[in-house]
Amino acid sequence: MSEPAARPRRRGRPRGRTDSRERILAAAADEFAAHGYDATTVRGIAARAGVDAALVHHYFGTKADLLAESIGAPLRPDRELPRLLAGDRSHLGEEIVRFVLGAFEQPDVRKRGVALLRTAIGNKLTTPLLAGFLSRELLSRIAAEQDAPDAELRASLAASQIAGLLVARYVLQLPGIATAPVEELVARVGPTLQRYLTE
Amino acid sequence: MSEPAARPRRRGRPRGRTDSRERILAAAADEFAAHGYDATTVRGIAARAGVDAALVHHYFGTKADLLAESIGAPLRPDRELPRLLAGDRSHLGEEIVRFVLGAFEQPDVRKRGVALLRTAIGNKLTTPLLAGFLSRELLSRIAAEQDAPDAELRASLAASQIAGLLVARYVLQLPGIATAPVEELVARVGPTLQRYLTE
Repeated sequence: MSEPAARPRRRGRPRGRTDSRERILAAAADEFAAHGYDATTVRGIAARAGVDAALVHHYFGTKADLLAESIGAPLRPDRELPRLLAGDRSHLGEEIVRFVLGAFEQPDVRKRGVALLRTAIGNKLTTPLLAGFLSRELLSRIAAEQDAPDAELRASLAASQIAGLLVARYVLQLPGIATAPVEELVARVGPTLQRYLTE
Repeated sequence: MSEPAARPRRRGRPRGRTDSRERILAAAADEFAAHGYDATTVRGIAARAGVDAALVHHYFGTKADLLAESIGAPLRPDRELPRLLAGDRSHLGEEIVRFVLGAFEQPDVRKRGVALLRTAIGNKLTTPLLAGFLSRELLSRIAAEQDAPDAELRASLAASQIAGLLVARYVLQLPGIATAPVEELVARVGPTLQRYLTE
């Protein structure tokens, strides 16, 4: 409180690097808001930030990583997906429910996840951004694994039940569902996802 | 545009009646916001509005009717429920999905329904109000029909899939689910509700 003005630089980074990171993040937020997820490119973000595209990749990784960073995503289902799809397909539905609820049971994840759900559904500007991310990084990858003409619909139905489960348990806190143990919900909701995705 | 100031009274009501109705609606909004759905009473609304409770019932009907009027509810699942529960129980899941989607396919219902979904999920003050209404007027009545210790959880799971379906189709507009015909979704999602409620 009574310290003099001089303060240590954050995480010991040289000032120039911090500035670049912050410029890139600000540029990413602007580009995503202006063009949506699909039409935004790392090249466009780099141009807006006045840096090289390689620097953007170096600091943040992929476009998905940049979006996750810029919205403060509390979990990365897109990163978890390969593991889930590589596992036992006959229990894929249960594994998806277990992963999502397992994450949301952690207080910090839950807090940021609920805030993100509220914003994604409540805010007209944020809705298409999250929908674009979900479609591209999650649903189309699940659909691509399936050799069926209705694969997109199947993936979206699974997403609808996950979204509804999160809203009912953590936002609306409906009776029974708000207090049920995770494994009870895995047993009840897992077969729904399994049926949507595979039957 | 160039008319003189005198304008006809709305729907020909005498001024005193219009004033009472508006005072009651304003009082209801205040009471619901202050106490939530369960703890709000018609008597309390009447007292705040400075009218007799009988007048509130005369103008608006029940507490559920008053909430529906004050939030501009685009459909009344609580009124439809007895018909659904009295029908063929072996197709209850499909009938619920058909009723909700049938309503949302009407542009005026959809517009108000989407706005209400966004507010209910996005706004911290509105969330418990809608959750209270759903619990009391819908979920507890569905649960009361069932002779099972987990009846509340079952009803809430069904509600979670309906909420997720509406969010995925009309708010996020996810691929496949946004454009599927209603009967396709009835056939896919109906069995989910059926299983949650009855199996």
